[in-house]
Formats: sequence, C-alpha cells, structure tokens
Amino acid sequence: MLHKQRPATALAGLESPAAGMGRRIDFALQQALSLAAAPGAPPLLGSAMRHAVFPGGARIRPQLCLAVARACGDPHPALSDSAATAIELLHCASLVHDDLPCFDAAAMRRGQPSVHAAYGERIAVLAGDALIVLAFQVLALGAAGQPARLGPLLLLLVQRVGAPDGIVAGQALECEPRVTLAAYHLAKTGSLFAACTEAGALAAGADPAPWRDFGLSLGEAYQVADDVRDVVATTQALGKPAGRDRDLQRPSSASELGLGGAIEYFDRLVARAIAAVPACDGAPLLRELVRTESERLVPKASVRDLALAA
Amino acid sequence: MLHKQRPATALAGLESPAAGMGRRIDFALQQALSLAAAPGAPPLLGSAMRHAVFPGGARIRPQLCLAVARACGDPHPALSDSAATAIELLHCASLVHDDLPCFDAAAMRRGQPSVHAAYGERIAVLAGDALIVLAFQVLALGAAGQPARLGPLLLLLVQRVGAPDGIVAGQALECEPRVTLAAYHLAKTGSLFAACTEAGALAAGADPAPWRDFGLSLGEAYQVADDVRDVVATTQALGKPAGRDRDLQRPSSASELGLGGAIEYFDRLVARAIAAVPACDGAPLLRELVRTESERLVPKASVRDLALAA
Repeated sequence: MLHKQRPATALAGLESPAAGMGRRIDFALQQALSLAAAPGAPPLLGSAMRHAVFPGGARIRPQLCLAVARACGDPHPALSDSAATAIELLHCASLVHDDLPCFDAAAMRRGQPSVHAAYGERIAVLAGDALIVLAFQVLALGAAGQPARLGPLLLLLVQRVGAPDGIVAGQALECEPRVTLAAYHLAKTGSLFAACTEAGALAAGADPAPWRDFGLSLGEAYQVADDVRDVVATTQALGKPAGRDRDLQRPSSASELGLGGAIEYFDRLVARAIAAVPACDGAPLLRELVRTESERLVPKASVRDLALAA
Repeated sequence: MLHKQRPATALAGLESPAAGMGRRIDFALQQALSLAAAPGAPPLLGSAMRHAVFPGGARIRPQLCLAVARACGDPHPALSDSAATAIELLHCASLVHDDLPCFDAAAMRRGQPSVHAAYGERIAVLAGDALIVLAFQVLALGAAGQPARLGPLLLLLVQRVGAPDGIVAGQALECEPRVTLAAYHLAKTGSLFAACTEAGALAAGADPAPWRDFGLSLGEAYQVADDVRDVVATTQALGKPAGRDRDLQRPSSASELGLGGAIEYFDRLVARAIAAVPACDGAPLLRELVRTESERLVPKASVRDLALAA
C-alpha cells in the first residue's frame, strides 16, 4: 500500500481529530483514483497517478476549501467534496510536471521518489495530464445533484489553473526573462489558494468574491513560508531537496528580502489573511485556524531564532 | 501571422465552400486562444499555445462533431461549437505532449517546428497542460445558455480523454510491455473520434449512444490510414517525419497486416462506419462525406497501386 498516514494540520481541527476532514478528503481522493483504474486501464498510468496523490502532503488546499464551505453552511457536501478533491488533483498534477527533468529535475517528493523518478518521464507527463482530466471528471460527478453550480465552479477552477494567470501560467513565468516576485507568487501559488476559498464558498451557495482576498493572502503566505523553509529546513524534513530555489535561480522572497525580511513579510501576509476573512458564523474559527497553521508553517521557536542569528 | 490556409476536407462540403464549417471552427479556435492571451499572460506560453493550434491539420475532429450536430438539427450552435473546439484543443494538446523528446522526439508537426522544437521542452509541457484546461473553459462558456447539458458533455469528454481508456491512456499503452493493436487504436484514436460523434449528438439534444460506433469505426479507419501513410508518404507530404511508427516500434496496422492488408482493413472500417450512421435526415449526406473523406485519406490512384506493386 502506498497510502501512508498524512501529517495532521491545524485546519483539520475543524472536526474532531478522529473523524476529521483529512479522512473525508482522503476518501474522496481514493474514490477519484478508482475512476482511473478501471479494468483495461494501462497499469503503469493508474499506478503513477496514485503515486502522485498518495501519500499526500498537508492537503492544505482541499482542507481550506472544505473549511470555507463549512463556514458558509456546506449545504451540499458532495459538491464541496468534489471541488476540494478537484483542486488537490490539479495541485498534484502540477507537482508531477514541475518535478520533470526539464523543470526542477526533482528526484524526491513527499519523501518518496518523484513520479518521473519512479515511472519514467513519459508516464510522468501522462499522469499529470490524466490527473488534470480526472479533476474535471470529479467536479462533474460531484455536481450531478446541483447542475446549475457546475458551470460557475468549472469556470472558476479553469481560470485559477490555466493561462493567463493560473498555476500553469505561474510555472511558465519561470521561462520568461523578466518576472516580478509578486506576479510569480500570485500565479504560481496564490491563484490555487484563491480557488480553494472561492470554490468552497461557491459550492456552499455563497458569493465567492468576498473570499478571494483571504485565499490570495494565505497563498502568498504559504509561498513565502515555502521559500523560507527551502533555506532553513533539511531535505529530510521537507521530503524534497532543500536549497532548490537558489540552485534553480527561481524568484524567492528569501533571496529577495533576506531571511528576516521574508519572515516579517510572512507575518504581514498572515495578518492580512486574518483580516480578510469575510463576516460569517465560522469567521472566528477560521481566523484561529490561520493563526495555528501559520505557526506550523514558520515555527517561532526554530526558524525565527535562526533568522535573528543570521 | 501563423494562421495559414487549412487544407479543405470533404466534411467541409456540408456548407458552401466559402462559408464553410472550417471557417466556423477556426473562428471558434481563435476566440478560445484569445482567452489565454489576456494582458499579463506569460507571452511565451500564449504564443506556444497558438503555435500548437495554428495552422491546423485537416480539423477532421471538430468538423465531424459539427457534421453530426448538424445532422441532428443543431439547435444550439454555441454549444456544438464549444464541444467541437474543446475536442480540437484536446487533440492539439495531445500532439504537443506526444511530440516531446521523451515520446516521439518529433522536430516537425504540420509542416512547422513542433512546439518543443520552437519553444523548448518546458513551455511545451505547459502549453499542453494549458490547452487541456482551455478546452474545458471553452466548454463551460459555450454551455452558459444550456447549463443542463454541461455535465453530460463534460463527463463524455473527460472519459474519452483521460484514464482508463481515453487518448491519454492510449498514449500510456506505448509504455506497457504488451498491448494489442485493437486496444491501442481504440484508446489512442478511436476514443476521441467517438467523442466527436457523441458530443455532436449530445450538443444537439440527441441521444449520443447510437452515434458511438460511427465515431469509433471512423477513428480506427483514420488511424489505419495514418499507419499506411506513415509507410508510403514522404515527410514533406505528411508535414511530420515519415516512417516514425517503424523507427519507434509502435503498434501499426501496416507492420502487423502488411500494406495491402492494412488497406483492405481500412476499406472494411470505412464500410462499417457508413453502415453505423444512425437513421436521421442528415444520414445520406454523412455517408457520402465518409466515402469522399476516405478517398482523401487513402487515395485509390496512388497508395493502392503502390500496395499492389509491393
């Protein structure tokens, strides 16, 4: 079995730990992958798709999507599940393609061989493609009971993933001669975090627009935390090679602002995210979760001391 | 301007040549690409996406989709246009990824440098991804006036493209140690041709099931014709390298059945396609179009004489 225990995150605390949202997400992802592994499916492709999705990372995107849906009442759990699952599948697809030899040439991901390292480059390209397609299949199936919501959700996700400013465009910015850090962060990470909060609201029948800034700020905070951890963490702790941003000369807040400056910027983004949570019954809980999650991402005790000492 | 004159196909004859379906398709594809090229979009990505779509090949898939929609009355042209456009974008995406160095390493496609040859491997991976996403965006936009049809059309397309038996799975069969020619042809080509006929019917409000065999038979005939032309045509005539199936040891009806056997098989598939056209007002015209198109694909005068002489 490739399916290992997922590290708990603060957002999982919205439910009791035992029956948490993490389990709901993993179940939905397992169901999704079973669609692609029907009899007659090419075995390597199906296996590579599973390898790309399990074991997962923190599953922070689908948890954020479900947390917002919950804060908005979550009247259609099948729909919010499908939106959260689709977003995680799209995220996993982007990791598979970003790890390819022509991009990051990453041999490790989430503590195991990356998909191209385990299955070869050809299957890695196709597994990414198939995961993108599967994401939209999951969305269509989850919207069966709410057909009027499929169009708006689908349009939201394609805009946050494709060109001109979704995560695929964000990755493409690495191929452009000049790019600003803000545009790069917005497209590469912010856009899919915005998709999480907007889709969570939309799936629950709420207006997605007020939820956009919350997702964007969180996404940028997450990217800055990733930049910081790329500098200070070990390869073992990350489950992927450390120091890659510097090695690949990628735009990074840590190299642009210095470690201390990046941590200050992270704190400002977390504060902005907390301030951006729209008024709703679940707002206090969401704000508290962002605070706890931010401490998980950039722990005061270790990273900040390191920055002061630097 | 990359946009050149497209070779006319028999299917275009459903309308007057001047105001033909080809122009309707190219206009819809131009509109689609403009979605991905908004201000702020990474210029290389947008340019590579356009390079992958224009100039086109015969545009046989979208023309088939529109021809079936027309045969079923085509009451919602915006919807059938979007289905046809989405299918062509998915087809172009598959060509971009199939041409990558890890697969066919094709330097030429449609008479110009392939996307990875012109833009590099990284942009080629991302352009393929972005075209897949754009296809579903086009479908969602085209279904705005018919929201109840979006779910069935989306589910149809994802099944004909992804795992377990869509065109991505067909490409993945090239990575498996053992594969039958029939399974390979079905997934690699038949599935998207079936999508054309099924989606054309579905977009027009007709039952797609009776249209499936027509598409499958045409798709297999098209793949067999491709195998035959890979053997007999020149690189210049194909607009891509000839003899690639043999060089890459791909399953091919020409190598499995011999050239004469492959042409006989092609004729049987064309007859099967003609017999599979469901009863409808447009059936006689569709049958005639298949006959003319089959002569374009495997011309009696040249290829068949060559097979006899072999």
